[in-house]
Amino acid sequence: MMQVGAVGEEELVRRIAARFPEPSCQGEVALGMGDDGALLRPVAGSLQVVTTDLLLEDVHFRRAWTPLDLLGHKALAVNLSDVAAMGATPGPFFLDLGLPPDLPLSDFDALLEGLAGEAREAGNIVLSGGDTCASSCLHIGVTLTGHVRPERVIRRDGGQAGDLIAVSGPLGDAAAGLLLLEAGWRWSSSAALAERPAGGTLDVPEREATVALVAHLRPVPRLRLGRDLGGKVSAGMDLSDGVAVDLPRLCAASGCGARVELEKIPVGLPARAVFAASGMDALRTALAAAEDYLLLVTVTQEAWQSGLGADLGLTIIGRLVAGQEGLALLVDGVEESWPEHGFRHFPRP
Amino acid sequence: MMQVGAVGEEELVRRIAARFPEPSCQGEVALGMGDDGALLRPVAGSLQVVTTDLLLEDVHFRRAWTPLDLLGHKALAVNLSDVAAMGATPGPFFLDLGLPPDLPLSDFDALLEGLAGEAREAGNIVLSGGDTCASSCLHIGVTLTGHVRPERVIRRDGGQAGDLIAVSGPLGDAAAGLLLLEAGWRWSSSAALAERPAGGTLDVPEREATVALVAHLRPVPRLRLGRDLGGKVSAGMDLSDGVAVDLPRLCAASGCGARVELEKIPVGLPARAVFAASGMDALRTALAAAEDYLLLVTVTQEAWQSGLGADLGLTIIGRLVAGQEGLALLVDGVEESWPEHGFRHFPRP
Repeated sequence: MMQVGAVGEEELVRRIAARFPEPSCQGEVALGMGDDGALLRPVAGSLQVVTTDLLLEDVHFRRAWTPLDLLGHKALAVNLSDVAAMGATPGPFFLDLGLPPDLPLSDFDALLEGLAGEAREAGNIVLSGGDTCASSCLHIGVTLTGHVRPERVIRRDGGQAGDLIAVSGPLGDAAAGLLLLEAGWRWSSSAALAERPAGGTLDVPEREATVALVAHLRPVPRLRLGRDLGGKVSAGMDLSDGVAVDLPRLCAASGCGARVELEKIPVGLPARAVFAASGMDALRTALAAAEDYLLLVTVTQEAWQSGLGADLGLTIIGRLVAGQEGLALLVDGVEESWPEHGFRHFPRP
Repeated sequence: MMQVGAVGEEELVRRIAARFPEPSCQGEVALGMGDDGALLRPVAGSLQVVTTDLLLEDVHFRRAWTPLDLLGHKALAVNLSDVAAMGATPGPFFLDLGLPPDLPLSDFDALLEGLAGEAREAGNIVLSGGDTCASSCLHIGVTLTGHVRPERVIRRDGGQAGDLIAVSGPLGDAAAGLLLLEAGWRWSSSAALAERPAGGTLDVPEREATVALVAHLRPVPRLRLGRDLGGKVSAGMDLSDGVAVDLPRLCAASGCGARVELEKIPVGLPARAVFAASGMDALRTALAAAEDYLLLVTVTQEAWQSGLGADLGLTIIGRLVAGQEGLALLVDGVEESWPEHGFRHFPRP
């Protein structure tokens, strides 16, 4: 099996260029890959969004249970989710790769295929540069640009006491997928189905397992929803680390506190099945579940009553309160302190 | 000794924000760190440069012999060198950090101090976002923007047969610094001096060793020179992998070949001392030496005769020829095939 360390850097760059043919530098790209830097023509009259996210082997993913084409999709999708959360339209992007020399060339090609597929789905956005080097572990860094008209920007700091807090869909499916992978379930690319481990401990139907694995391995950025919400919500962000961790960030930026009603947390059906089989409380687990890449927004009561939520599939989970009231969880009407147990890269002291 | 894994992600981000206070989002930055993405206002009438470079532990540097403040400088400097090579002025930048949990907090702070110092020297450019996560090895990814008026852009693809090839200074000092580090020499931050290893094999004067180590550990981006050359050279790029590797890239982009006269290669005095002590041929080693971060440019004969080179300290090393003549090295007037032995991340098959 041919490995990336055997073919030389020029061949790797050639394969990247072949997978991302540049449309002769039209639109936002005046000069693409191959020079010291790209030359962009940002969209006039719009603000430019720039966001960057790392995916590191054994931190964000394990190679043993991650099909590399899906990893390519995800590396771009997590950045697209950030652009969606600003209410923006994605534009040119940049790719930094740290490659273990023993990575099979077929895996490298699959990774590129996934990235190219996600770029097409996002509106044919253009890979315009990056860096490729040897590394002890697989490392994927994406920098993504976007553009949004100033009056349509969604920021974290616009929430006000009294605004309703909403999420854009059921929570927990991606976390359920991770639990399945940890329990030995695997995604079969050929069958497009979850594969149950022999003598597995997590007994859920294949149907639910499949949806949960897809939610974890191939998240879908909410680009259209973000654009539709731009100018209509008071604040917003994407849910990458879970409501338990992300909502405090929105609150801190907005200078507000929050009351969230636990019973209102929408939990995905696959998540319910997996959390039940794991002996976990569905609502509390979903509240802290990471990587759903849904949108968390705040809306004024007036905007909500004018039909915003029903149109766009939002679910109200609570409301913002004045800052000094802090964050609290309401469980059957009883106030609890905020659960601080989402995913963290460095544990708290 | 406190380590980064002990203080939590919020504290690390707080330390980053404290070191890079945002000037309340003026100029090119409409919204800086802390949201899903930054919001930029690119400079009107200019093209925007975007460049990205990775520095990975044990690939680009070894922690044992790299003071972390100098590493911070270098992580930004290698990107600034790319912006310089486009003839551009640097703007907002983004920082992705993969941090080993056992990294001493004092090293983390030193790294930030170096980055902040380099950002100040580059004209108070603003850190506007990024990503911080745990990693098995220290990983620094910088994405840097810049701006340049269209008529001042320096690209690799503008060279024509007959143009002169020039470099902006003596070559080889950074490579000499790396040779010294490999032989046990170390940089003493407290004494600002090279420290000779006990019983060392590479016997050079401390003075030359000091300059060579600084050249390797703290390269200086040629920002002013790049801006001065914009609009006056036919093509250009920065010398990160050495003339032996970089010139073929410029030639490929320009559709030209090249003749380089070996005797014309300018070699730094520190490099001469170290290469001689290592038993290496000075001219051939300097030709293939990486990481000088000087500029490699091509100029028309007319531009040269009008005084361009003398003004800006350029040294002619050869000339571009028609593409079908290929690349060749002239040694005492005798043509040799091109030396293909600069630094490569993945060796050729």
